[in-house]
This record gives sequence, structure tokens and C-alpha cells, in this order.
Amino acid sequence: MVNGSFDDRKPCKAGLQELLPEKNKYILHAPDGVIKEEKMGYTVPAGISNKHLHVSEADFKALFGADAEMSRFKDLSQPGQFATDEKVDIVGPNGTLKGVRILGPYRKQTQVELSRTDCFAIGVKIDLRESGKLAGTPGCKLVGPAGEVVLEEGVMVAKRHIHLSTAQAEEAGVKDGDIVSVKFGGDRALIFDEVLVRAGDTHERDMHLDTDEANAASLSNGQEGEIIK
Amino acid sequence: MVNGSFDDRKPCKAGLQELLPEKNKYILHAPDGVIKEEKMGYTVPAGISNKHLHVSEADFKALFGADAEMSRFKDLSQPGQFATDEKVDIVGPNGTLKGVRILGPYRKQTQVELSRTDCFAIGVKIDLRESGKLAGTPGCKLVGPAGEVVLEEGVMVAKRHIHLSTAQAEEAGVKDGDIVSVKFGGDRALIFDEVLVRAGDTHERDMHLDTDEANAASLSNGQEGEIIK
Repeated sequence: MVNGSFDDRKPCKAGLQELLPEKNKYILHAPDGVIKEEKMGYTVPAGISNKHLHVSEADFKALFGADAEMSRFKDLSQPGQFATDEKVDIVGPNGTLKGVRILGPYRKQTQVELSRTDCFAIGVKIDLRESGKLAGTPGCKLVGPAGEVVLEEGVMVAKRHIHLSTAQAEEAGVKDGDIVSVKFGGDRALIFDEVLVRAGDTHERDMHLDTDEANAASLSNGQEGEIIK
Repeated sequence: MVNGSFDDRKPCKAGLQELLPEKNKYILHAPDGVIKEEKMGYTVPAGISNKHLHVSEADFKALFGADAEMSRFKDLSQPGQFATDEKVDIVGPNGTLKGVRILGPYRKQTQVELSRTDCFAIGVKIDLRESGKLAGTPGCKLVGPAGEVVLEEGVMVAKRHIHLSTAQAEEAGVKDGDIVSVKFGGDRALIFDEVLVRAGDTHERDMHLDTDEANAASLSNGQEGEIIK
């Protein structure tokens, strides 16, 4: 990377070209060809969430049958959270999202997390929320192999946020509830403002972004962004 | 807005709460409840592009018939550009985007502009480009009412950019080819870096963003963003 031809590179504000988070450094290519390194701040990896839902046990049984159990597909970044093999269709006023994956474990209330693109596609009102704060959100219909569930509320677009353990938050110099910015490099470089910090012992270093946000920044899963306070 | 309850507002980095571009001012609500105004820099309105295509005259005739003519649906922000009534299906290796609108007038080469979300949906390789620079981009199949066209190349994701007339660029203090950043407020506030400036007498003040970028920032058409150099 550092040995690549400078002339082939695109013009870039402030000369920033590469991010080497594994070394906690930027590589800066100045217009005069000088290459120098600069220390980065604390970074978090992008964790890109496609549309998904969390379900109550009662809703799961209604969708998959009274004797059905969640089947673990893979573990997720947050301790105890996992993707299941189970999928349902989400039906809105203007369309259906087919085969949307359920995440476990069970929650008290079923919560459907869509991108704004998804909301437009099926005609559901866009409601940006923190996880779990569902009062007043729009509803939808869920269709599973064993039955249907009509939700009066529970469809949300997730407010972007960072998960950090207590020790990680201390290292980053932030605390639970803080609002920070996070900078990502690349061909669609941008700085996300209004990023909520969720810190505590049940959390692990990860930045929750939906597919719209990841696509707007040309992000891949695991790409590191720098916290800017 | 200014008279709304401060306590109901969400926490917000640096206390920035409202953007009043028509007055060229921010309204700042400080944590101690003090409200003050601050002058903004030069702003540009968001112009959100859904998936669309520009077509050559030969491809248009192949899709709609030898005697067909473009039918003007509405004018666009850039002088001489317009949306047509004509729509085609775009077919990729893994799916089809139905009813995608053609923009006029004719171009030398057919150019299909998709979001990254669209590219994932139909399985086309993502290739971020400036308009018109199509060498090496992926192809697709177009299906119209009178025939089909197989494109060897021409499918791109548009690099975000600003259009400014010569006078507007002078007022903003930028020139054609510059790379700037643009800041948008709101509940998904962010700063887009790597924004290309396209300035000249055939351009008019507008910022080209695709639906992924607009959704990542909770933008509506016409919302003003501030140029940061």
C-alpha cells in the first residue's frame, strides 16, 4: 500500500489516503509526495446490521410452533447475542421483506430493525430510535411457517451507536450516554456525528451501523473508525 | 422551534440543535440553556438521486422502438437535464430492478447509476465513479417494451459531488475539481468528506447524493448542507 504509485491515487482532502488501524496510525501522502505517519485516536470496528428482528418468546412460538426452539446460527459481537437460523417475512402497507433473520436470545418485546431503505420499500413510517424504546413506533405483520403475528408497534430504524466494555470506554475516554463522532476513511470517507456510546460490562467494542450507513461510507464489516470527541 | 422545550431535546455534541439555512445561521442550544446564533458557511441543497439511467439514442430506440421519442416528465436541477416518462428493467446476475427511470437528454454512452444497495440486490459489482468515466465498469441487461439491450459496461455508483455555477463557486470560494466536505445536521448528522466540486456555466447549485447517502443522514430533498473546506 505504502509503496503504491502516488500518482495513481485520487485527490483527497488534507492528503489523507490510508488508515492502518492495526498499527494505530494514519499514513499521510502529502501533495508534494512526502509520506508521513500520524497517530490515530481510539478506534472501533464497523459492525454492519442488515434488517433483522428480536422476538418475544410468545411471538416466536406463534410464528414457529408451540414446541419450536431457537436454533443458533452464529454468535454476534455482543456477549450472549446470536443469530438464529429462523427467518420470517415482514409485511408493511406497501410490500413485504422476505426471509428476515431473527436474533436471539428472546426479548420482552418484539423489535424489528429496518433501514430507511427497507421502510420506504414496504411503506412503514421511519422512526429513528434507541434499542428497546418502542413506545409509539409503527407496527407490521410477521409471517412465519406456523403462523402470523400482528405487531401494534415495534418497527424502528436504529440510532447509530458504539458498544464498549467498561475498560474499553475508560481507554477511549468516553462514558455511557456520551454522544461522539466517528471518522471512517476510504473512497466515501465521512464523519458520523450523533453517535451514542453504550458502555458497560455486557458490551464489547463494536459500532452498530445499518446497511444505508455502511453503503454511504463504502464500509466493510470490521473496518476501523476513529472516535472523535 | 426555538421556543420548544430544551429539556425534550436529545443530547447533542457541541450543543448544535438546529440549522436555519434560510437565515444562513445555526441556532445553538448550550447545555446551560443559553440560545445563540452562529453564522454558517456557504450551503448547498441535497439533491437525492434514486436509481436511474442515461441512455444513448441507439439504445433508446432499441428499448422503445425506432420511432419512439423521449417524453419529458419534469425538469431537473441541472440546466437542460430532465426526467422522462420512460422506464426500463435493469437485470443483473442475481436479480432485476423493475421500472427504473430514464433521464434525458441522450448521452453518447448509456450510463446506469445505482446505489450500493441496488448493486447488492441484483449482484452487480460496485464501482464508484465520476459520471461519464465508464471504462471498465460492469455491464447489465436493459429490458424495455420494444426490446432488450445488453451493456458490456456502464453500471456505476456515483461519486458524490456538488454542482455550482461559476459565480456560485466563486462565492463559495471553491473551484472545479476541488475536494471538500459537506456537513448536514439533524438526527443522523454527519460530515461527508471526499465531495467533488463540479463548477462551470452549465452547472447549478445542488449536491448529488444517492439514496444510501441520503438515508444514512436522514436527509430530505433540498435540505441544506454547509461546505467545509
